[in-house]
Amino acid sequence: MHDIGLIRDLALVMLVAGATTILFQRLRLPVLPGYILAGMVIGPHTPGVLVDDPRAIADISNLGVVLLMFTLGLEFSVRKLRQVGGALLLITVIEVGFMLWVGYQLGLVFGWGSRNALFLGAIMALSSTMVATRALTESGLRHWPFARLVVGMLVAEDMLTIVLLTLLTAIAISGTVETGVAISVVGHLGLFVVAGMIVGLLLLPRLVDYVAQFDRNETLLVSVLAICFGTSLLAAWLGFSVALGAFLAGAVVAEAHSAPRVVHLVEPLRDMFAALFFVAIGLKIDPSQLIHYALPALWIALTVMIGKSVICSAGVFFIGHDLRTSLRTGLCMAQIGEFSFVIAALGLTLGAVSTFIYPIAVAAALICMVISPYLLRSADVLAQTGQRVIPRPLRLLISSYSGWLENLRPVDENAVLARMFRRLLWHIAINIALVVTLFVIGAYINAHHAAWFEHWGMGRNMRHSVIWACALFLSLPLLIAVYRKAEALGMLLAELGIRERFAGSYTQAIRQVLAKLIPLATLLVLALLVGVLGSAILPPRGVVLSLVAVCVILAVILWRGLVKVHARLQAALRDTLEKPASPPNESG
Amino acid sequence: MHDIGLIRDLALVMLVAGATTILFQRLRLPVLPGYILAGMVIGPHTPGVLVDDPRAIADISNLGVVLLMFTLGLEFSVRKLRQVGGALLLITVIEVGFMLWVGYQLGLVFGWGSRNALFLGAIMALSSTMVATRALTESGLRHWPFARLVVGMLVAEDMLTIVLLTLLTAIAISGTVETGVAISVVGHLGLFVVAGMIVGLLLLPRLVDYVAQFDRNETLLVSVLAICFGTSLLAAWLGFSVALGAFLAGAVVAEAHSAPRVVHLVEPLRDMFAALFFVAIGLKIDPSQLIHYALPALWIALTVMIGKSVICSAGVFFIGHDLRTSLRTGLCMAQIGEFSFVIAALGLTLGAVSTFIYPIAVAAALICMVISPYLLRSADVLAQTGQRVIPRPLRLLISSYSGWLENLRPVDENAVLARMFRRLLWHIAINIALVVTLFVIGAYINAHHAAWFEHWGMGRNMRHSVIWACALFLSLPLLIAVYRKAEALGMLLAELGIRERFAGSYTQAIRQVLAKLIPLATLLVLALLVGVLGSAILPPRGVVLSLVAVCVILAVILWRGLVKVHARLQAALRDTLEKPASPPNESG
Repeated sequence: MHDIGLIRDLALVMLVAGATTILFQRLRLPVLPGYILAGMVIGPHTPGVLVDDPRAIADISNLGVVLLMFTLGLEFSVRKLRQVGGALLLITVIEVGFMLWVGYQLGLVFGWGSRNALFLGAIMALSSTMVATRALTESGLRHWPFARLVVGMLVAEDMLTIVLLTLLTAIAISGTVETGVAISVVGHLGLFVVAGMIVGLLLLPRLVDYVAQFDRNETLLVSVLAICFGTSLLAAWLGFSVALGAFLAGAVVAEAHSAPRVVHLVEPLRDMFAALFFVAIGLKIDPSQLIHYALPALWIALTVMIGKSVICSAGVFFIGHDLRTSLRTGLCMAQIGEFSFVIAALGLTLGAVSTFIYPIAVAAALICMVISPYLLRSADVLAQTGQRVIPRPLRLLISSYSGWLENLRPVDENAVLARMFRRLLWHIAINIALVVTLFVIGAYINAHHAAWFEHWGMGRNMRHSVIWACALFLSLPLLIAVYRKAEALGMLLAELGIRERFAGSYTQAIRQVLAKLIPLATLLVLALLVGVLGSAILPPRGVVLSLVAVCVILAVILWRGLVKVHARLQAALRDTLEKPASPPNESG
Repeated sequence: MHDIGLIRDLALVMLVAGATTILFQRLRLPVLPGYILAGMVIGPHTPGVLVDDPRAIADISNLGVVLLMFTLGLEFSVRKLRQVGGALLLITVIEVGFMLWVGYQLGLVFGWGSRNALFLGAIMALSSTMVATRALTESGLRHWPFARLVVGMLVAEDMLTIVLLTLLTAIAISGTVETGVAISVVGHLGLFVVAGMIVGLLLLPRLVDYVAQFDRNETLLVSVLAICFGTSLLAAWLGFSVALGAFLAGAVVAEAHSAPRVVHLVEPLRDMFAALFFVAIGLKIDPSQLIHYALPALWIALTVMIGKSVICSAGVFFIGHDLRTSLRTGLCMAQIGEFSFVIAALGLTLGAVSTFIYPIAVAAALICMVISPYLLRSADVLAQTGQRVIPRPLRLLISSYSGWLENLRPVDENAVLARMFRRLLWHIAINIALVVTLFVIGAYINAHHAAWFEHWGMGRNMRHSVIWACALFLSLPLLIAVYRKAEALGMLLAELGIRERFAGSYTQAIRQVLAKLIPLATLLVLALLVGVLGSAILPPRGVVLSLVAVCVILAVILWRGLVKVHARLQAALRDTLEKPASPPNESG
């Protein structure tokens, strides 16, 4: 009771946070930069009230990142992730890549050296989910159509964040980035995300709903926190960030029926730790440094705001939204925030960047955070001015582009077929990803746990044979599923692609050929895939041939049973994803 | 991102807590002892999974105590504190005193020495609010009449906890406890509680309601946490426990209109940190020690369960409740829990007790926690058995005692007058407490901040005069209020005490004399009080006389103004306490 060091620090932090939130809310100023400023005021760099041990607070505030990412995941469920749509994902990738390049160039212009410049690019590339969603909520625009675009781009950026964090870690550790390393990182990451998602979707929503039925908030909350922190720990152990783990846990738990209750319970925790997180950022900052680096920070903030709003607006317009919606989306994305701090802190921890990067990142983010709400409010004025200023020919071009895109949209029957088509492709992709996962796990066991097998008296060949056989047998239901989906795809394509008005009396024949060709081609691709995947653990040729033979026989005999196994797994997944309450909507 | 030590530990703790809460909920076992057991399993004393740094977790788990006490305060608002009633408070004091004595004797029987025995008494004296309220909730008996008695006794025990904590600290530091020290501690504590309550009630509910009107959960939560931790810090600085500060903050905030929203927001935080708190207790325990001390722990648990249930049941029966209600109340109180850990930890921190006290306290509490829910369920069976077993004469005595008590209750008009009487006494007591506070603050400033006055060129006499004058002037509205309440009290007593059937034709005259006598006596007492209080800072006699003269003149001239000032303060307080939603109910 008398060792109150931590409580003292925490009390001071909560006191300034409380005063800030009331004052800034009253003055209608954004609260997040207020937290950071308050942190600076009570920080060790200013005279007066001192926080004893900023490290303890910083430690705790890291929980803020975990809870923040978890609640983001809860809001952006797997269903919403799928709704983001390919087009929006593509322009987000282009946008982030562009900002990364702009930031890198700016860093080189400042003469900071290429490593610092690269981190600067990453710092400038990612918009702040917290600032943007707050701006939407505070301006009462959360339910406008453009808000969905903003949320979609933010989700896409969140995924890119994880890629960026992993790549930057690799670069910071090895000094350079090789294409092979990058592809392997992205590949591993993709595997972890897809496998984690699928296993998670099969287990966690059921578990959460089971716990929810006890109807005790405490039990539900503690279990959900166990899932959140447990997944974060798993991600960290596998070499990814805790933030990724927490985000995935949230996205998966969001599919539980009781997800709204979970959101309700976790939100206060997030709010408390988010306040701690932002105040803790302020604690690390020396105000005199901020002033010292004001000029580069201002340039960075300006570049972010102009660059992001222009490229995002252009991208959204390009995929077929009107000028006003595009402009609003762009202006809402035109800031940086919490991810910039995370990246700058990562660079510092790894010793990859100079120490001045952190205060500059904070200063630039602060400027963006303060200005961001006003940018959003000015969107309509800007759009009107734009329409007056833009010369007539350009305006005509814009409206004809929109009209052309409108005509391209699939209608009626075609839209339904296109949706089926997408769904089949999606199923095939997931099943292939699972097969790949199984073989990668096999290779991993082969490489790292050879001792187990020696313990049982197995040689190299025997080990390879056992692992390869296991991977192949486990893959069997998945492979069969892929074949069946490919059959369906073939029939669908035949129906869709070969119209009677083109092929006339040959229609039926051509359709049958196409419907058979596609599953056969898929089978060939699958065989190649399994061969390539298994290359590290391929047993002697005789064993391979006999195993394949056994498999084929098994497949034929057990076809029905295997189809049933897969159908059950798939039904479990579909139950989770496609609740009657909110019908799936797969059109981006 | 890569310094995940704390997150790793926290993740492990949350994982076992989550598994425990699901498992124990499923098996319908109490969850709290489950947390402790889970903590032991992953603790540093068992092989296998290890928590790196139990200290960091213990640090954070201390926040659990603060949040726990805060939510207890929120539930047991000032209004409920008043509802506890004198009778229930009295039997709680007797009960705690009795258990303290029993525990002390038991400690001496064990041959542990008087200091250890005293702490053992304190460990055994206090029931666990968490265990009792959980048992009520889980058994679905929360809204039965006896539950109100249990909650009342728990609140009374919470207040005694604070007295005990402060006294034990004094004893641990000075080695002995002198009556003077004890009285001074209780006095200071009473002053802090009363003054803190009144100042808090004037400010905090308004502040909370003001913040609540922003309609942003985050703002409300962060502000309320600022109040909670801020008050804890203030209490710690003044030499009391953070638990006391948090409890008072909760009790005061509970008077805000938006208190239900606050409860809703703070509960998840409490649940998370409570889980951490109980797991952290387990982390500190070496299971082998538990087994080693199983026998004394069993004796202690038995004594607690039998002693508490008997004395509480008897007390509740004595103040006029039926046998079944009394038995239920007693069995619900028959355990120890979180306060026992706090007291044992306090003793260890201060080096006042032997190290074996802590594991013994935990073991005994564990036994109580496990058995407690079953005790409550067996209450009805016990009551029936009791009524069958008790000999007829005793049963008659019991029922005639209940009947006699029933007749004693004031009825009709008298009850209304009694209520007015109580209210007037209550107002006088509060105002006198405030006057005392003002003079104590004056004496404190005089003793500790003499340098301020020297800085302004004031000598000793001048300093005394200034402080004394300030205290007196600030007390003026309070003193006038006491006088006016005393007038009203006099009239009421005259009306109530002198009945026409006794005094006959002299009734009016006697009544007038009594109505005048009481305020005059009060004035005399007040003068004496101010004289005694000011003795430490009394200026020269000439100054005193002239200041008193000025005050009297001021009082006469400003009478109306001062009355108005006081009325406004009082109205503000009454507004807070007596909301139309739930009419005040002052009968204990």
